[in-house]
Amino acid sequence: MKTYFDCFPCFFHQTKRTGELLEIDENTIWKLLKGVSKILSEADINCPPPKTASFVYDFISRTLRNPDPFRHLKRESIEHALSLFKKVRARIHESSDRLESAIRYAAAGNVIDYGISSDFDLLNELDTVANREFFKWEYHEFLKDLKDAPWVLILGDNCGESVFDRLLIEELKRPVYYAVRGAPIINDVTKEDAISSGIGEVAKIVSTGCKAPGIVFDWCSREFLDLFKSAPLIISKGQGNFETLSDKGLSIYFLFKIKCTVVAKYLSCPLGSLYFGKSLVIS
Amino acid sequence: MKTYFDCFPCFFHQTKRTGELLEIDENTIWKLLKGVSKILSEADINCPPPKTASFVYDFISRTLRNPDPFRHLKRESIEHALSLFKKVRARIHESSDRLESAIRYAAAGNVIDYGISSDFDLLNELDTVANREFFKWEYHEFLKDLKDAPWVLILGDNCGESVFDRLLIEELKRPVYYAVRGAPIINDVTKEDAISSGIGEVAKIVSTGCKAPGIVFDWCSREFLDLFKSAPLIISKGQGNFETLSDKGLSIYFLFKIKCTVVAKYLSCPLGSLYFGKSLVIS
Repeated sequence: MKTYFDCFPCFFHQTKRTGELLEIDENTIWKLLKGVSKILSEADINCPPPKTASFVYDFISRTLRNPDPFRHLKRESIEHALSLFKKVRARIHESSDRLESAIRYAAAGNVIDYGISSDFDLLNELDTVANREFFKWEYHEFLKDLKDAPWVLILGDNCGESVFDRLLIEELKRPVYYAVRGAPIINDVTKEDAISSGIGEVAKIVSTGCKAPGIVFDWCSREFLDLFKSAPLIISKGQGNFETLSDKGLSIYFLFKIKCTVVAKYLSCPLGSLYFGKSLVIS
Repeated sequence: MKTYFDCFPCFFHQTKRTGELLEIDENTIWKLLKGVSKILSEADINCPPPKTASFVYDFISRTLRNPDPFRHLKRESIEHALSLFKKVRARIHESSDRLESAIRYAAAGNVIDYGISSDFDLLNELDTVANREFFKWEYHEFLKDLKDAPWVLILGDNCGESVFDRLLIEELKRPVYYAVRGAPIINDVTKEDAISSGIGEVAKIVSTGCKAPGIVFDWCSREFLDLFKSAPLIISKGQGNFETLSDKGLSIYFLFKIKCTVVAKYLSCPLGSLYFGKSLVIS
């Protein structure tokens, strides 16, 4: 997916929100906004937004001299999710279709986000997801593909969400590789965060080698690209991964919440919709 | 008023909307957005937003090689307003307090805007303004000041709105100078537009000498500044003039509709409020 006009103001909103979330002084927020302006003046708009987001958040990190500015928010998200873990697992275990239920809760977990918006309500999302209608729900096709898949690759997204991904991994009943960002960016899950989320106990954690809040092939490691190409089944979590992979004609199950008007328009669906299925968009 | 964080994304929204309003091709809109990014990276945030807006719209004009890109929209606004002129004048003449009524319709006319938003409903505004509660309504103080004022200076704002300003001028019952922008910018009223609006028949039209969509003293002509300083009573129309003059400690009656969240927050009032009175904000 390429960059759309409305992505430009969104990068400012993200920068401002980051400044406020991290309780940064006004002068520094201005420094960030002006630096981001310069980045946007040179941005390649044919790239998906997460590629430009890498430059934006890298600039924020460098300006703040903090390689992981969202560290405490990521930790909080993981701890909050872990406090709900047993309850959600019990719900999944009690449901008539545990895998379906686990997919739903993994989608609900995707509501956690400090990039696009920090205004989310995890508890409400978890309470309602069992009965929510998904904009796309290719569950039966997925079951068929899963049957033939000796192992699965999950592309992780955000911290906290990662805790509920563990429950999905448990229900897949086969080996799983869980791909994480190559370095901290926004509240995206890194190796350390995945371990804190308990993923290490149920899957092999692998790095994409790429710091972007999405999968930018040019920036991924050779090892990850080999794994990606050989994966019999891929579940891609989150909007950032969707934005970078949606138009590549790949047979990937995207599982995410549609969080911005640009992606909603791209998919012709209402903002806030839940999505589980392949992408039919071809660039 | 200085520039606020939310002004930055707004400049992008304005640029995008301008591109769409003027039916500009996608590549050129991107050129505009990237050029505006560069302008913002160098912007002086201690200035009021209309000063930066001058650079933004000047860049748009130069890129489009069109010194007056909103010309046809300005003409449409004036013609639309002129088609309503007699009806509104009749309403004012029928009202129990003609001056009060004229002030209300002059405020309603301020809804016309192609800068901050192009999503306005003039007819609805005109139909409801007679009974609307203003956020600030210093009418009685204004009457006292008017009594002692041999002449009045009105700072004009947008085309179309200018037609209803004529009705206000008629009710002031004394000589009026009507100040217009020194050159075309957005849909702001210039000398030519003021004449088309019928202002020339009831007031002396003067140029500020400044192209900004507001009053930037540094850019105004000596003649205008002398007039401004000697004016016994000033009515400032529109948000752009408010943004540039609100914190100067001047005894000016601002008459406008609050069209953006930044100004609404600045004044601690709801978005869409109507305002008629002096500003108590001191920078």
